[in-house]
Amino acid sequence: MIETQTNIRVRYAETDQMNVVYHGNYAQYFEVARAECIRSFGFTYKQIEELGIMMPIVDIQIKFLRPAHYDDLLTVKAILRELPIAHKMEFHHEVYNAEGTLLTIGKVVLYLVDAVTKARTTMPQQMLDKFKHKFEASTH
Amino acid sequence: MIETQTNIRVRYAETDQMNVVYHGNYAQYFEVARAECIRSFGFTYKQIEELGIMMPIVDIQIKFLRPAHYDDLLTVKAILRELPIAHKMEFHHEVYNAEGTLLTIGKVVLYLVDAVTKARTTMPQQMLDKFKHKFEASTH
Amino acid sequence: MIETQTNIRVRYAETDQMNVVYHGNYAQYFEVARAECIRSFGFTYKQIEELGIMMPIVDIQIKFLRPAHYDDLLTVKAILRELPIAHKMEFHHEVYNAEGTLLTIGKVVLYLVDAVTKARTTMPQQMLDKFKHKFEASTH
Amino acid sequence: MIETQTNIRVRYAETDQMNVVYHGNYAQYFEVARAECIRSFGFTYKQIEELGIMMPIVDIQIKFLRPAHYDDLLTVKAILRELPIAHKMEFHHEVYNAEGTLLTIGKVVLYLVDAVTKARTTMPQQMLDKFKHKFEASTH
Repeated sequence: MIETQTNIRVRYAETDQMNVVYHGNYAQYFEVARAECIRSFGFTYKQIEELGIMMPIVDIQIKFLRPAHYDDLLTVKAILRELPIAHKMEFHHEVYNAEGTLLTIGKVVLYLVDAVTKARTTMPQQMLDKFKHKFEASTH
Repeated sequence: MIETQTNIRVRYAETDQMNVVYHGNYAQYFEVARAECIRSFGFTYKQIEELGIMMPIVDIQIKFLRPAHYDDLLTVKAILRELPIAHKMEFHHEVYNAEGTLLTIGKVVLYLVDAVTKARTTMPQQMLDKFKHKFEASTH
Repeated sequence: MIETQTNIRVRYAETDQMNVVYHGNYAQYFEVARAECIRSFGFTYKQIEELGIMMPIVDIQIKFLRPAHYDDLLTVKAILRELPIAHKMEFHHEVYNAEGTLLTIGKVVLYLVDAVTKARTTMPQQMLDKFKHKFEASTH
Repeated sequence: MIETQTNIRVRYAETDQMNVVYHGNYAQYFEVARAECIRSFGFTYKQIEELGIMMPIVDIQIKFLRPAHYDDLLTVKAILRELPIAHKMEFHHEVYNAEGTLLTIGKVVLYLVDAVTKARTTMPQQMLDKFKHKFEASTH
């Protein structure tokens, strides 16, 4: 299992008139957490795209337990329970406020598809190797 | 069962560099569809808020089957299968493009809470009556 | 001079905790108004892009006179004072609420650039002809 | 003159199908830069609001010189040329990419208004003192 975390400061634009973060904006927070998770492997989501692979989201599920507020410094976790050997990546996310209270739980499923043919594909070997290396390191 | 539908034209701002609607923006499309659904009952979401009731989203689930593109004229359905007699409302959503192809399926659960005490509450009777009326009309 | 107008209903997502439309969201309202203005000429912004022309915004100016609120049905004007014969288009915008009160004034300058070479270009003749036709019709 | 700078990593959600940051999103980048600028004075925008002062934006002007791209690590400057002794604050902004290339220039004017009466007001003395202190420190 791989778990990384990143900090996100809530922007004014992200609040709504309920004085909380608009629920739809958590998709962005999860996206940022995934990008940082992938960066921790030694490459970037951007580089995956430059290799001709796109990663559309096919499923997202979010449970909102408690609201986040303007200027909160959130901790957003990205958790990969399984090595993405096939065409699918499944990220689990958790959002905490600065007091360590769990605010939100989410799950995001992405497919790896060829940017040109749109056919499902897999992680390039060089990147998969880095995932494997990190997964192995995390279990020791 | 109540089912309403509303049209939404995809904005440029809502696309991302994958040339499709960014997945997080469907939360907004669903919100618009819910607001129009409630408007069809003869009152508005805004009026519910003015009565001191807030309706935070507690759960959202979205399945992305096919992408939506810039300038697409989408049809977004809001479906209420059950009369919201308690503190909970559950909306089902479907997004279709102009060719009638189903693009996205979603479910959104909201709680009715007192804006001041934050305690769970129920739909005001005058509004619930309008829901009942419409539900009864839809089954005949 | 060409002037078109379009209606936009304020979304909950577009409000912020000041209980008004977040100022940055007016850029989207103007975008929608421009797209509808161009559609009124008999073609679409999307079609311009499909001809290999992109229209990046190079300048935007907005004056916020009064706030817009959730669920307001806004009227957004797009005004073209000059025929876009060169590489530049200049749109003026005005936002009114349902009572006809002027809320916001804006100006947006776009460049027409070749999608491949990024060099400045001009409106394709077939489209420019439609602009001309509409401008001439508007002055009689 | 006070000048602060903050880093913002471009999110996927912030790009559009032109493969660049959607122009309207710079309003958010400027907002983040202003919040960090104010934080550097020893208090926060949030605390100003808690004192019953709101700071609506009344004017924004942005010049887009070069595009920003996904995953770019931007540097966003917030520049205060004058001490905000009256009801007005004027911020200048500049956005640079990681290579130090200037991408965007902006100006944002805010008013300080009483949250209840909506009348124009001034910075609370305790905060103004911190501004003064920082301005004086910056000129020595």
